[in-house]
Amino acid sequence: MIKVGVVGGTGYTGVELLRLLARHPGVKLHAITSRGDAGMAVSEMFPSLRGRVDLRFVTPAEAALDQCDAVFFATPNGIAMQQARELVNKGVRVIDLAADFRIRDVAEWEKWYGMKHAAPELIAEAVYGLPERNREQIRSARLLANPGCYPTAVQLGFLPLIEAGVADLSHLVADAKSGVSGAGRKAEVHTLFAEASDSFKAYGVGGHRHLPEIRQGLVGMAGQDVGLTFVPHLTPMIRGIHATLYIRLTKDVDVQSVFEARYRNEPFVDVMPAGSHPETRSVRASNLCRVAVHRPQGGDVVVVLSVIDNLVKGAAGQAVQNMNIMFGLDEAEGLDVVPVSP
Amino acid sequence: MIKVGVVGGTGYTGVELLRLLARHPGVKLHAITSRGDAGMAVSEMFPSLRGRVDLRFVTPAEAALDQCDAVFFATPNGIAMQQARELVNKGVRVIDLAADFRIRDVAEWEKWYGMKHAAPELIAEAVYGLPERNREQIRSARLLANPGCYPTAVQLGFLPLIEAGVADLSHLVADAKSGVSGAGRKAEVHTLFAEASDSFKAYGVGGHRHLPEIRQGLVGMAGQDVGLTFVPHLTPMIRGIHATLYIRLTKDVDVQSVFEARYRNEPFVDVMPAGSHPETRSVRASNLCRVAVHRPQGGDVVVVLSVIDNLVKGAAGQAVQNMNIMFGLDEAEGLDVVPVSP
Amino acid sequence: MIKVGVVGGTGYTGVELLRLLARHPGVKLHAITSRGDAGMAVSEMFPSLRGRVDLRFVTPAEAALDQCDAVFFATPNGIAMQQARELVNKGVRVIDLAADFRIRDVAEWEKWYGMKHAAPELIAEAVYGLPERNREQIRSARLLANPGCYPTAVQLGFLPLIEAGVADLSHLVADAKSGVSGAGRKAEVHTLFAEASDSFKAYGVGGHRHLPEIRQGLVGMAGQDVGLTFVPHLTPMIRGIHATLYIRLTKDVDVQSVFEARYRNEPFVDVMPAGSHPETRSVRASNLCRVAVHRPQGGDVVVVLSVIDNLVKGAAGQAVQNMNIMFGLDEAEGLDVVPVSP
Amino acid sequence: MIKVGVVGGTGYTGVELLRLLARHPGVKLHAITSRGDAGMAVSEMFPSLRGRVDLRFVTPAEAALDQCDAVFFATPNGIAMQQARELVNKGVRVIDLAADFRIRDVAEWEKWYGMKHAAPELIAEAVYGLPERNREQIRSARLLANPGCYPTAVQLGFLPLIEAGVADLSHLVADAKSGVSGAGRKAEVHTLFAEASDSFKAYGVGGHRHLPEIRQGLVGMAGQDVGLTFVPHLTPMIRGIHATLYIRLTKDVDVQSVFEARYRNEPFVDVMPAGSHPETRSVRASNLCRVAVHRPQGGDVVVVLSVIDNLVKGAAGQAVQNMNIMFGLDEAEGLDVVPVSP
Repeated sequence: MIKVGVVGGTGYTGVELLRLLARHPGVKLHAITSRGDAGMAVSEMFPSLRGRVDLRFVTPAEAALDQCDAVFFATPNGIAMQQARELVNKGVRVIDLAADFRIRDVAEWEKWYGMKHAAPELIAEAVYGLPERNREQIRSARLLANPGCYPTAVQLGFLPLIEAGVADLSHLVADAKSGVSGAGRKAEVHTLFAEASDSFKAYGVGGHRHLPEIRQGLVGMAGQDVGLTFVPHLTPMIRGIHATLYIRLTKDVDVQSVFEARYRNEPFVDVMPAGSHPETRSVRASNLCRVAVHRPQGGDVVVVLSVIDNLVKGAAGQAVQNMNIMFGLDEAEGLDVVPVSP
Repeated sequence: MIKVGVVGGTGYTGVELLRLLARHPGVKLHAITSRGDAGMAVSEMFPSLRGRVDLRFVTPAEAALDQCDAVFFATPNGIAMQQARELVNKGVRVIDLAADFRIRDVAEWEKWYGMKHAAPELIAEAVYGLPERNREQIRSARLLANPGCYPTAVQLGFLPLIEAGVADLSHLVADAKSGVSGAGRKAEVHTLFAEASDSFKAYGVGGHRHLPEIRQGLVGMAGQDVGLTFVPHLTPMIRGIHATLYIRLTKDVDVQSVFEARYRNEPFVDVMPAGSHPETRSVRASNLCRVAVHRPQGGDVVVVLSVIDNLVKGAAGQAVQNMNIMFGLDEAEGLDVVPVSP
Repeated sequence: MIKVGVVGGTGYTGVELLRLLARHPGVKLHAITSRGDAGMAVSEMFPSLRGRVDLRFVTPAEAALDQCDAVFFATPNGIAMQQARELVNKGVRVIDLAADFRIRDVAEWEKWYGMKHAAPELIAEAVYGLPERNREQIRSARLLANPGCYPTAVQLGFLPLIEAGVADLSHLVADAKSGVSGAGRKAEVHTLFAEASDSFKAYGVGGHRHLPEIRQGLVGMAGQDVGLTFVPHLTPMIRGIHATLYIRLTKDVDVQSVFEARYRNEPFVDVMPAGSHPETRSVRASNLCRVAVHRPQGGDVVVVLSVIDNLVKGAAGQAVQNMNIMFGLDEAEGLDVVPVSP
Repeated sequence: MIKVGVVGGTGYTGVELLRLLARHPGVKLHAITSRGDAGMAVSEMFPSLRGRVDLRFVTPAEAALDQCDAVFFATPNGIAMQQARELVNKGVRVIDLAADFRIRDVAEWEKWYGMKHAAPELIAEAVYGLPERNREQIRSARLLANPGCYPTAVQLGFLPLIEAGVADLSHLVADAKSGVSGAGRKAEVHTLFAEASDSFKAYGVGGHRHLPEIRQGLVGMAGQDVGLTFVPHLTPMIRGIHATLYIRLTKDVDVQSVFEARYRNEPFVDVMPAGSHPETRSVRASNLCRVAVHRPQGGDVVVVLSVIDNLVKGAAGQAVQNMNIMFGLDEAEGLDVVPVSP
């Protein structure tokens, strides 16, 4: 049994981790920390976990995290970078669901995240946890940077054509739509029900923190610079990301075959039949990414539709998938939830 | 392995049955019928099941249902009553998720359902599948009438105080609110998104088909007639029923203790701490019923709050729970889904 | 032209007042105050008002409210009671949309609102602004207590049968459901979209601040004490209240006629035909209350369904209606919005 | 007073027309037709109109539409083309909210709409009712083709940069998101609440009927062919369209100034300040189009955000705006609704 600790279990990625870990046959939940809510039963804050998670939140001091095999950070940005070194040095494998170790260029990270990085020397060692790209490095990772939600949906959609070398890299467009849980469980006016329901808007068009993360990933696939326009939108739904990608082909290829070949062996990427329109609900509560490829009117523009559950494949589920890889388990262990639809 | 057939798998109770049965370790799905969609892959109609259910819909003639151990009817009212006799006679155990065998008084059934009953002789034999009331009879049932969604939430909320003999039976009020999936997957104007979203309404105040079913259940608990007012409402959410029950006490009792004692050993009824307000999402996708009991201002009126997922404990999940009991399996087999929240 | 000031225009009742007043032909908007956002253009905070309201928020000091004919308080509870005396003394007519002057019993108010009342001597003078009950006193009111949202829907539903003396007053039940905007525009976790969407719950069953307000109103109608159980619920919609009321008749009357007679001349109460089920969206954005009366199975229990838009008839619209009455205008002036449906 | 008839008033554009016309000071509603619901009171089908519209639906034969000054067709595609000639010949001015007269190329129309055109000779005479492009021709139009909802939002967003000659016309991308009311009031499974709520999907990626309409409009602005990729999406909200447009600049210009100059005098286009992100709710129930222009990271890609209420500026409101122009009224008459937000 893997002895697991969770730091910061009071947000949506935290409760989602607990939902998945509570049923994971290879995991023993050791401790869940929260400074603000120490002492409270987890199931009091999250009644959905009544009868499934019996722990109480504890302070980091009480948690004895260094006795864990793996520690997940489901914290705001800037926390994991302060605590990872000590844990890693003690042999604990760290999985950060925040952004602290996602960007390899420290200056770039500090610009977008508006703080000084506390552990720049760890960035080089951290492995970016997109299994479909980096499975081998993940196996031996001591420090894993779990990808962001938008970056997961967008990179998985661009990957096959960029790797195949048939995309016009100068002008990639990613128009992405997210459910409101992507904004987290912080009390803020703009994500109140009465603000976000029955309405739709773009945000961060001038620049969003996931832009450099996506660009870094695409550059890695392409082996050269890319021109990317990324526009996120807020959609009145709880979970789900839908990325609509626009790519000009530089060469005439059978795009459906390119996708099918690339993802044939991936347990969590489902290439749908040509002509499909995946709905976000078709992956709700599951770790799947479903993609469909279109070439409208047979022209040179390819439209890729890529959907995930932002809290699962876009956060907690992918973190569990990475843990499974790191500890040599079946990659799908604990992740066999059938999507909940309707 | 229990060999299972599903008749009429194209509605919400059908797809929900498949979601649960696909992961049930003791079940082998044998056939799913649909006259209208025979030949279509189940996963084409329900992409959420891609990779989990590989069957195609077949016609009833092709289905060879008489080779099954158990057959679920996820059909409109009036179908199971025509086919149950033949199956039961061949030793197939039948679980009807529709209303054909729920009401013991044939005339009453015919009045509310507006049709002649095709198998009145089977009604007496049918067991009403509310395990918290009828577990023993369910074990040996050949024909099981799975309760309606409202009746499940409402009966479980009334049960402890009525059985304890402390409720004023002359004036019971059940104010129930349902998500829109309760209306089924039929194309109708009043359940369109643009009609049912961002609005709230009562319906069927003059008389709803679940009224006689609930009344029959309460009379059974009370051993005498009851005065019941039942008002259903349509709520802009997909899943969930919230029943708010108003009961006048005839005797001063510790209502919290009455509830806790009654449901102590029930795997799927969770009596929440005094003062709780269960949310429907706290049971989403799971087979749980969560209840809370209040006595506002210490008066003689008790308010019971009872929530279920209408498609699970209110339909497909309870049907699987009944199947487990009928076949001697662990009652919770295949039903260990952790509620999906948020 | 009535010169109008609004204190605290940054919440939902504030922006709703502005939506209505911006088109009111008899009103000139003089000033809108906000301590926290002074200097900001109103239309920057509320882009829906771009081109319709050109004011900026000002501090109370800058606002010169004593030069207004009428001042609306769209503030949290406890503000108006500190400022009303000075304004009233200067001849400004004050309309408080909060609860400061709704409860005549000071001790009761202090118990429920958890603070010392700053102007108890004004309470006796304040007029409770439910026009369907108190139209005459409203005409000459210097200080008007605008009713709460639940109290408006519930009182208008109970009123005809209580006034007619045919209701069993010992056991009145009001099961009320509100859209999330009723909780205001404060940043709080439980009203986030990801918390309140696709779910339903009761709250405050043990006691809600609107309970004493409703009870006071019903006692006024009945001329004697009443037994009332009031349970509010949170519904995943933006606007709207649906009150479902349960009343036992003490005398056999034609309830439909009682309602129609009582509200025949009311411009904002619509008694729907017998058998109707009003939807909240049928009054969305308008000042209407629609009610329907049922007597299920011809028994002695009457079910009343009463719907309003909580931000209009339940707050800003009723405040404008009261202003119209106080200043001798047509009661419907500025309130001719046709409900927005779908 | 303009004597107005409405053909086919039972859909969402029909009820929306009635909402607007009921308050229009220059209009007298003469007749509303519905074959299927003749005899029913309009306010019975649409309770939101109780007290505001007293008409009953009549058959076309009873309607005496030729006595009207203006007739709106709020019908499915293919109806207006059969009846327009006779009305136009009698001097009635016809406004078609469907697509019958929007596409000038008959063969193209027949391909996309899958039927033979019944009045091809009228197409040339019909005026495309986008006032911001064709105001002069609209004044004297006898037959007006009211634009589609997507085409309105998309064309108004592209218009300034295309007219200015600074857009790379070879690769225009329009990623558009619509509320579910855009699909109409037909009973269909995919627009049921339980299907469309809490989920997001693209549709018609291979080709949508609004593509040729938009392309025709853009070609008209550009004076040359254009390469356009148009992807519509279904969003879980009732009303609203959000178009996100991606345009590569061929020349360095101040895009904000280009937009402000172009729309300075337009009563229903609001160019928001640089950096804005318009929400669909900021135009809910109103005839406004709000647009914002971005140039992320100062590159050569411009992102335009354009929002409308699909039932108002995207249908009924624009139709009334066109009627006002055709009859020489103030263009904003009857359209002064303040957006309803929240």
